[in-house]
Amino acid sequence: MNSKQNEDEEQRRQWGARAWATLATVRTRSPLIQCITNFVSMDLVANTLLSAGASPAMLHSVEELPDFTPNADALCINVGTLSPAWLPAMKFAAELAVKAGKPWVLDPVAVGASKFRMMACLELMNLKPTVVRGNGSEIIALSKASAESSMGVDSCHESVDAVEVAKSLAQSSGAIVAVSGAVDIVTDGKQVIGARNGVAMMQKITATGCSVTALIAAFLAVDQLHALEATTLALSIFGIAGEMGMDMAKGPASLRTHLIDSLYGLDEAALISRVRISSL
Amino acid sequence: MNSKQNEDEEQRRQWGARAWATLATVRTRSPLIQCITNFVSMDLVANTLLSAGASPAMLHSVEELPDFTPNADALCINVGTLSPAWLPAMKFAAELAVKAGKPWVLDPVAVGASKFRMMACLELMNLKPTVVRGNGSEIIALSKASAESSMGVDSCHESVDAVEVAKSLAQSSGAIVAVSGAVDIVTDGKQVIGARNGVAMMQKITATGCSVTALIAAFLAVDQLHALEATTLALSIFGIAGEMGMDMAKGPASLRTHLIDSLYGLDEAALISRVRISSL
Amino acid sequence: MNSKQNEDEEQRRQWGARAWATLATVRTRSPLIQCITNFVSMDLVANTLLSAGASPAMLHSVEELPDFTPNADALCINVGTLSPAWLPAMKFAAELAVKAGKPWVLDPVAVGASKFRMMACLELMNLKPTVVRGNGSEIIALSKASAESSMGVDSCHESVDAVEVAKSLAQSSGAIVAVSGAVDIVTDGKQVIGARNGVAMMQKITATGCSVTALIAAFLAVDQLHALEATTLALSIFGIAGEMGMDMAKGPASLRTHLIDSLYGLDEAALISRVRISSL
Repeated sequence: MNSKQNEDEEQRRQWGARAWATLATVRTRSPLIQCITNFVSMDLVANTLLSAGASPAMLHSVEELPDFTPNADALCINVGTLSPAWLPAMKFAAELAVKAGKPWVLDPVAVGASKFRMMACLELMNLKPTVVRGNGSEIIALSKASAESSMGVDSCHESVDAVEVAKSLAQSSGAIVAVSGAVDIVTDGKQVIGARNGVAMMQKITATGCSVTALIAAFLAVDQLHALEATTLALSIFGIAGEMGMDMAKGPASLRTHLIDSLYGLDEAALISRVRISSL
Repeated sequence: MNSKQNEDEEQRRQWGARAWATLATVRTRSPLIQCITNFVSMDLVANTLLSAGASPAMLHSVEELPDFTPNADALCINVGTLSPAWLPAMKFAAELAVKAGKPWVLDPVAVGASKFRMMACLELMNLKPTVVRGNGSEIIALSKASAESSMGVDSCHESVDAVEVAKSLAQSSGAIVAVSGAVDIVTDGKQVIGARNGVAMMQKITATGCSVTALIAAFLAVDQLHALEATTLALSIFGIAGEMGMDMAKGPASLRTHLIDSLYGLDEAALISRVRISSL
Repeated sequence: MNSKQNEDEEQRRQWGARAWATLATVRTRSPLIQCITNFVSMDLVANTLLSAGASPAMLHSVEELPDFTPNADALCINVGTLSPAWLPAMKFAAELAVKAGKPWVLDPVAVGASKFRMMACLELMNLKPTVVRGNGSEIIALSKASAESSMGVDSCHESVDAVEVAKSLAQSSGAIVAVSGAVDIVTDGKQVIGARNGVAMMQKITATGCSVTALIAAFLAVDQLHALEATTLALSIFGIAGEMGMDMAKGPASLRTHLIDSLYGLDEAALISRVRISSL
C-alpha cells in the first residue's frame, strides 16, 4: 500500500467514525426538527426523521411560530407544494430560526417551475439558510437567478458544471450548497466534498430528496459548528440506508420500506464499511 | 386456580368476546368516519380505517359540512397541522356532529406547542367531544390549561400522575379521556381501565397516534352507548395489530405495513388470546 | 377453436400488444403529469406515476399555473379534499391545459357528498375534460346532476345501469367516461369497452382510485389521439399490477407495496398474458 492509498484509507476511516458519532448523537439527543414541507412528502419526511432518531414536528401556521420555532433544534423548509398562503410562514420561521441561532435548511423543489416559485426561493435565500440542497437542475436554476438578481448580469452558466455553480452559489449566499446526484456534492464555496452512496432507484420514490433535506436538518441540529461535514454525512447515511434497502427490494415501494428500516437499524460496522466520502 | 385468578380470567374472557363482537360489527356495518386530520396522517388514518372495515372520508370545507357531517357515523378531529383556515371547519363539524347525536373524538396533537393551539383545543373541548385521546404530555397540558381557564387557578399538577389528571379532565369536560402510553389508560372520571397491548416501535411510525384516534371514532360509531369500553377496545385492538405486525417487522416501515395487514386479517382466536384489558 | 374464439383471441392479442407499446412509451418519454389532487392521495399518486415511468408534479397555486401547466404533458384534477381555496386553481389549470391542447382528467371523488362539491364538479365538467373517471356511484350522481343542470329535467336514472349512464354522460359532455368496478367500463358514448383486471382488495387501500386516474393522464399524454383506448389500457395495467401484487400480499398494506413494485417491474410477457380487455 503506497502513501496515497494510506491517506485515502485514513480519510475514509475518519469519515466513517464521524458518521457513526453523529448518527449516535442524533439517536441520543433526538433533536426536534420543525418541517414546513410539501404535502406529498410529509409522511416520508416524518418517518425518515423518526427512523434516524430525531423528532419531527410539522407546524406551518404563522400564529404558532413565535412560540414554537425558537424551541426547535433545526428547521427544514421545502417549497414543493408552495402557495402564497404558506410563503409568509416559511419566511417568518426562517427569520425566527436565524434569530434563535438555530440552523435551517432550504429545499428549493422545482425552483425553475415558475417565476413565483423562483422569487419565493430567492427571498428565502436572502434569509440565510445554513444549507440549501437540491438536484443539479434546481441548484443551477437557483444560482443563475441569484446571480442575475444580485448583479443584473446575463447568464453565462450554461456550460459550467454543477460543482462550479454550487461553489458560486455558496460564495454569494453564504450557505452550504448540496447537490444531489450520482455523486452528492457539498461545498461551502471553498472546499468541495463528494459522497458516493445511494442507489438510482431512490429517484423512483417520491420525496426521497425532501427526506434527505430533513435529515440534514437533524444532523445540523447536533453539529451546527460543522455544517459542511454534517450535511455530507446526512447525504451519505441516507444513501447507505438506500443501498442496504436495495439488497432486499423488489421495486421502489419495497425499497422505501427497507430504506427506512435500514436507517432505523443501521449499526456501526455497516455504517463505517459503507461510507464513501472524499474531498474533490 | 384461586378465586382472584378465576375472576381475572373471567374478566379477560369477557373483554376478548366484546373486542371481537365490536370489531365484527365495524366490519359488517362499515361506519362512515369523517376525519378532519393533519396532512401527515391522512394516508395512514385512511388505511387504518379501511383495514378495520370502516369507511373513511376526509372532508374539511365549511361549505360541505352541513350536507355531509350529519350523515357520517362519527367524526374525528385532529389538530396536528392546525391553521386558522381549518379551525372554523373543525368547530363547525363538531357542532354538527353533536347536533346530529353522532360521537366525535378529539386528538389534541402537541397541544402545548403554542398558545394558539392550546386555545383552539380548549374551544374544541367546549364542544363536548365524546372522547379525547392524547399522550401523557398532551393530556396533562390540556387538563392543566382547562383547569386554569375554567377556574383561574394556578397549576399545581406537576406531581400528579397521568391517571389522576385524566380523571380530572374527564370529570370537568364530560368526555372520556384516553392516555396512550406503555399502558393505555381510559377513564370517564370514575372508572379507569388499562389496555396493555402494543409495542414500543409503533412510536417510531408517524401518525400511529392519529390512526388509533380515528379507530376509536369507528368503534364509537357502532357502540355509542358504551364509549368507555369502545375506546378501550379500539386502543387494545390497534395495539394487538402492532404486536402481530412486530412478529414480522424488521423496522418501523415494515412494522407499519404488517400492522395494517394484521388489523385487516385479525381473527377471533388471535384477538381473544391477545386482549390485555383490566380495570385499574 | 371456432371462429368466435379466434376473433376473441385476436382481439386479446391486439390489446396486449397495444398495452405493452403504450407502457413502453410512457417509460421512454417520461411525460410530465401535473396533479392537483387531494391530500390523502398525493403520496400514492406520485409513486404510481414514478413506478409507471412518468414524472409527477404536484403544483396547485394559481400564481404558478400560467408558467407551468402549458409545459406539462397532461393534467389530473381530483376533488377529494376540495376547498374553495383550491377550486379556482383547478378550473384555471383545466382551462390552460385545454388552451395548450393537453389532455386532462377529472376524478370527481365523492361528488354526491355535498351541493358545493357537485357544483364544483359540474363546473369542471364544463371545462371539457378529456376523461372523467369515478366509481359507479360517482358517475351516476354526476350524470344525473349533469342532465338536470343542462336540461331542467327530473332524474329518472334510478334504475338504469352504469353502462347506460356512462354513455349518456359521455355523449352530453364529450368526455371519455370511465367507471371503475369489478369490470371497469370505458365509453366515448358510442363504443363501450370493458377491462376485467384488478382484485377486490385494492378497494381497501386508500387512493387507488386517485392513482389510476393519474395513470390515465400519463397514458393520455403519450397517446392523446386514442383517449378511449389509452384510458382502458391504464385501467387494465393498474389492475394487472394489483393482481401480481396480490400474489405476494398478506393484506392491504403489503398489497400496496407489491402493486407499486409490480407496476415498476411489469414486463411484456406478463402484461400480454394478463390483459383482459374486450368490447361490450
